Amino acid sequence: MKQRILTGVTATGIPHLGNYVGAIRPAIAASQQADTESFFFMADYHALIKCDDPDRIERSRLALAATWLAAGLDPARVVFYRQSDIPEITELNWLLTCVTAKGLMNRAHAYKAATDANTDAGEEPDHGVTMGLFCYPVLMAADILMFNAQRVPVGRDQIQHIEMARDVAQRFNHLFGQGKELFVLPEAVVEEHVALLPGLDGRKMSKSYDNTIPLFEGGAKGLKEAIARVVTDSRLPGEPKDPDSSHLVPLYEAFATAEESARYRAALREGLGWGEAKQQLFDLIEREIGPKRAHYEALMADPDQIEAILQAGAVRARSYATPLLATLREAVGLRRFRTISRQNAAVTTEKSLLPVFKQYREADGRFYFKLTSHDGRVLLQSQGFEQGREAGQWVGRLKQEGAAALAGAPVSLGEGVSNDELVTALAALNQE
Amino acid sequence: MKQRILTGVTATGIPHLGNYVGAIRPAIAASQQADTESFFFMADYHALIKCDDPDRIERSRLALAATWLAAGLDPARVVFYRQSDIPEITELNWLLTCVTAKGLMNRAHAYKAATDANTDAGEEPDHGVTMGLFCYPVLMAADILMFNAQRVPVGRDQIQHIEMARDVAQRFNHLFGQGKELFVLPEAVVEEHVALLPGLDGRKMSKSYDNTIPLFEGGAKGLKEAIARVVTDSRLPGEPKDPDSSHLVPLYEAFATAEESARYRAALREGLGWGEAKQQLFDLIEREIGPKRAHYEALMADPDQIEAILQAGAVRARSYATPLLATLREAVGLRRFRTISRQNAAVTTEKSLLPVFKQYREADGRFYFKLTSHDGRVLLQSQGFEQGREAGQWVGRLKQEGAAALAGAPVSLGEGVSNDELVTALAALNQE
Repeated sequence: MKQRILTGVTATGIPHLGNYVGAIRPAIAASQQADTESFFFMADYHALIKCDDPDRIERSRLALAATWLAAGLDPARVVFYRQSDIPEITELNWLLTCVTAKGLMNRAHAYKAATDANTDAGEEPDHGVTMGLFCYPVLMAADILMFNAQRVPVGRDQIQHIEMARDVAQRFNHLFGQGKELFVLPEAVVEEHVALLPGLDGRKMSKSYDNTIPLFEGGAKGLKEAIARVVTDSRLPGEPKDPDSSHLVPLYEAFATAEESARYRAALREGLGWGEAKQQLFDLIEREIGPKRAHYEALMADPDQIEAILQAGAVRARSYATPLLATLREAVGLRRFRTISRQNAAVTTEKSLLPVFKQYREADGRFYFKLTSHDGRVLLQSQGFEQGREAGQWVGRLKQEGAAALAGAPVSLGEGVSNDELVTALAALNQE
Repeated sequence: MKQRILTGVTATGIPHLGNYVGAIRPAIAASQQADTESFFFMADYHALIKCDDPDRIERSRLALAATWLAAGLDPARVVFYRQSDIPEITELNWLLTCVTAKGLMNRAHAYKAATDANTDAGEEPDHGVTMGLFCYPVLMAADILMFNAQRVPVGRDQIQHIEMARDVAQRFNHLFGQGKELFVLPEAVVEEHVALLPGLDGRKMSKSYDNTIPLFEGGAKGLKEAIARVVTDSRLPGEPKDPDSSHLVPLYEAFATAEESARYRAALREGLGWGEAKQQLFDLIEREIGPKRAHYEALMADPDQIEAILQAGAVRARSYATPLLATLREAVGLRRFRTISRQNAAVTTEKSLLPVFKQYREADGRFYFKLTSHDGRVLLQSQGFEQGREAGQWVGRLKQEGAAALAGAPVSLGEGVSNDELVTALAALNQE
């Protein structure tokens, strides 16, 4: 079975060369593997948390879409969409909000970092903290669960959010799934081997260090000028240079074959001048980036084309989101009106005579289930479980395997219920 | 101009006689006034906060809709809808979430009551508190602001939530309105004169006291049986009774004319037996409720009819919500892709040569605005304001009245800017 992978990028900036090597290029490569089904989205609802400059949001969304497409994302193969084109996501966000424990959000790293900084500065912990920042992990859970993604590539700082999404999904499955998994539990995939590209000063390339090399913006000229500003030592042409301490080498290696890299290192050791080394680096990067930049510029000049691609992506994304949301609405009780009166004999189907499993939580904090007959008598009562999932698993086994699952099950018969009656009830359920 | 009034009812129970007298009947009467435009909705997204029993949600929503219609709500006159049929509401909920201060939510009464109860019980403050409870005031703000309601009838306990909605609306207007009011600021309307109906035991009729008299459910028989259980003293027929201390009298008066009430009181003073007094009370209530109950039962037997009414209501509600949300999306930057490059001469319209007002907040916590020319020079700089609204009002006046508004405005000219240049700039804006 294909693995479904979901990747989101917050739309608050213009991608630089570090983003390309560290995120865009590997994600596009992964999306081309045969055994995967990839969802890519621009997280523009998330962008609103950090950015109240509408023009910046607009510019960043457009540049981001053009960058991904120019870098090789194939919208025929990948489901490529803007988060804000999928209204089901905010509705799911609310459904999840209702089952998420506030205590879970209190422990989110990003929120705690903000309150710690405030406390250190002598402010109230929540000074300047918006509900957007606080609720962000719930929206992220909605992003992931909406498409039942199995794998979510993230940086280390995001692992906790994936765990929170699992937690919320489990709770929702437990409360409303009736033993079925409404949501797949997602897994974080941390790409350990992806190179962190150094910036102009050798530190990790990052907007916050102001040491970035542009990707497409600024043209070949901008790229060349940025490379000219990469810090080197003062060795002259002809003097041997140590490739391992040069910032140029990891930049070069991010675009070169192994053979090319070896030649570059050797040339430096043999005295290649920094100016020439930078020219070679520029030529190499430009070999890969140049054609893509032309594509980028063509796209940026034709926003209608990108708009059409993303509209088509939204249609595809919603073809997943709409039916799932319909199932979820049914599960929580937001149903089309229909006759529900017990007194109305016309709707008393045979189904209403079947016994029913109920899962619930007691004041002791433990999870229980029971099987009740159509007239409300308790046929089977479980012991308490630490984990809701355990209760759900036993219910699943009893439904599927019937009386065979009773051996070893932590349950007892209801008062005045015979073993025969229970076996018959389970068999009836099993035939359903 | 018509006042727009918005009323929501949480769908977690079946209405009783106290709900009818205290909320349903007066709200329907208000909706029939000529100078109002009423929006009624079933708050089923809110119901999910309190209730994880899907069948209960389903029953309650249906019974609530049938009750309101049977009680006289005219869906041709009133916009009558289910909250969960308006996907724009959860999207607006997210936009508002991003601008709501967490500190504001920390102070919400309902949340504080929950944490206080936990603390008293020796638990962690957030024990058992869901994000639904915590975020509830933001969703309520979305309910109100989505339709730009001017008046929201609420109980005293809800006044704070309306204030929060105003607060959030102001902040959104300030951040994204460019001097325009994207949202109307709603006002709470507390109905002081509505009678609180006593229940069977004389305390306020409430499900939590288990002292309710049913409205429609249980039929005339159920009503009669409930009235028979209203507590009285042990005076015998023929003994004089004190109308002011009888629970029957306020129940009677809630359905009687002044004349009928006077006769009832006189009869009790003259020795009317409790049995006969209860029969008269039943007859009186049945006079009003009986025909409505027949309507209720017909509706409950035909859920498709209610579904059709609410679908039509959703279409009407969305005819307000969809264009407003489109405006809001444009305002925050979630825009259809279009050419935005400055270098692209083709899109440099005259508009881009106009000066622009910018509103912002400084580190000192005060609100400012400035007018900048198309090439970024500051033409006009305001002083700091305590309230963002003040800044917005000045911007509004300067836009509308031009230089005429400069007299007395707390502003100064930008460096090197002549008065003439400013007057010309304002005039150009004014012609826009």
